[in-house]
Amino acid sequence: MKRIKRVTIVGVGLIGGSISLALRRCRKSIEIVGVGRRAPSLRKAKQAAALDSTTTDLAKGVQGAQLIVVCTPVNTIVERVREIASHASPGTLITDAGSTKAEIVAALDKNLGPGARFIGSHPLAGDHRAGATHARADLFDGRTVVVTPTRASQASDVQQLCDFWQLLGAKTLKMTARQHDQAVAATSHLPHLVAAALASATPEELDELISTGWLDTTRIAAADPELWTQIFLSNRKCVLGSLKRLETNITRLRTALEREQPAQLESLLKKAKRSRDAVGS
Amino acid sequence: MKRIKRVTIVGVGLIGGSISLALRRCRKSIEIVGVGRRAPSLRKAKQAAALDSTTTDLAKGVQGAQLIVVCTPVNTIVERVREIASHASPGTLITDAGSTKAEIVAALDKNLGPGARFIGSHPLAGDHRAGATHARADLFDGRTVVVTPTRASQASDVQQLCDFWQLLGAKTLKMTARQHDQAVAATSHLPHLVAAALASATPEELDELISTGWLDTTRIAAADPELWTQIFLSNRKCVLGSLKRLETNITRLRTALEREQPAQLESLLKKAKRSRDAVGS
Repeated sequence: MKRIKRVTIVGVGLIGGSISLALRRCRKSIEIVGVGRRAPSLRKAKQAAALDSTTTDLAKGVQGAQLIVVCTPVNTIVERVREIASHASPGTLITDAGSTKAEIVAALDKNLGPGARFIGSHPLAGDHRAGATHARADLFDGRTVVVTPTRASQASDVQQLCDFWQLLGAKTLKMTARQHDQAVAATSHLPHLVAAALASATPEELDELISTGWLDTTRIAAADPELWTQIFLSNRKCVLGSLKRLETNITRLRTALEREQPAQLESLLKKAKRSRDAVGS
Repeated sequence: MKRIKRVTIVGVGLIGGSISLALRRCRKSIEIVGVGRRAPSLRKAKQAAALDSTTTDLAKGVQGAQLIVVCTPVNTIVERVREIASHASPGTLITDAGSTKAEIVAALDKNLGPGARFIGSHPLAGDHRAGATHARADLFDGRTVVVTPTRASQASDVQQLCDFWQLLGAKTLKMTARQHDQAVAATSHLPHLVAAALASATPEELDELISTGWLDTTRIAAADPELWTQIFLSNRKCVLGSLKRLETNITRLRTALEREQPAQLESLLKKAKRSRDAVGS
């Protein structure tokens, strides 16, 4: 990390803001620049995320940075990285924080122009509340960040990127973009889809009878609909595959209940409990 | 509540133990008796739940009590209440803490013998950890307890029962047993079923990629499988009705994803977010 003197964060929301705060916590001398689209929200973000400076001018914002982290919505990342690559200083390493990786990595793995290199990242951390005002220096502490190098990636870049995320408090895990997308379809995207389906299945007038179980199970249904529409669509096939497994499980539970088969029902619930207990709280 | 001098709790697990602790918190002079099946776990419960005395002898344990709360598994409540009614002193009010109400109330509304009266209760409070050692004095604070009187119930009994739960820190809500069962099918039983289906749909090797969203959404899949088998079966029709609504929502989300319809997908997620936001954290 010694040669990084300036980091530019493009898109200073919850993730971008938390990257800044986490970096600030341990490396006071690194200059952190925030790039955004709207001056008023950038002003708020500058204060909330302790940025050194901000700009709406992407070309200006990325100049002189050794590392650029793109934290914009998943459907804008490819375009944004290409734009950055055309302005960045030679030798700049670019990464992102997008929730899906295969499409992005396939588009950006090569041909970025002179000296700019892209390696994908996905920090498995977040909050159902969006925006830099909810950013936290400890958002990545103990969390996993998946890094998705390809055959074209330079080992020193991969190392530097892993060092960066570890500096912010995270553990890093290297895998291919495809492996990543299949995994998060099951561990992240499917829960969001299910939470949404469950929240919508609850009649409104029952608010007083809401249990803590319902609150937990539906919590992430409060996430940003626009953001998640893009995530689901960009990982469509893997999400549909995971959803099929879920629907099979629901059918099994329903059938056992319809046929009043206690042993079958209990066995399905035991299997679920084993899966849940294996992970911890 | 003035005339209650002794309360007997039959089944001193998480709920029974927490009733004792919550009562102890505000009414030091009330004698609290715990009845259980096994002496070793009763010894633990006596300490954890601050009971005055314990016994495995149901007939002995219920004598002299003005209020008896049955906190045994939902499929044993009817039998246990009938047994209690045959031993209890005349004028004893019996209630339960079962998660379903229609079957229980239908079986116990009348013909309990001289002077014993039953009114159903369901405290909407809990924890995925079972047992008296997890009991807490504040388990009912601010929670809803549904009380399900019938035409046969005496107004003074209903009042006394509501006073009792309010004393423990809860809000009370009166409704019919059938209304209750339909409501909790949506707000409690369906979330448990969904959490179980989701936990089982997650491949084991993905533990490192588990997100906070997955942890929240599957938390209640760790609940006791035997207990929940009984709850699902005792509220079978209502749970199947709720499940149908969920499956419809899942099909809508799946179809929008299969057909790559962003507007449709976002509209479904927005509806879910509205439902979730309306309730709060």
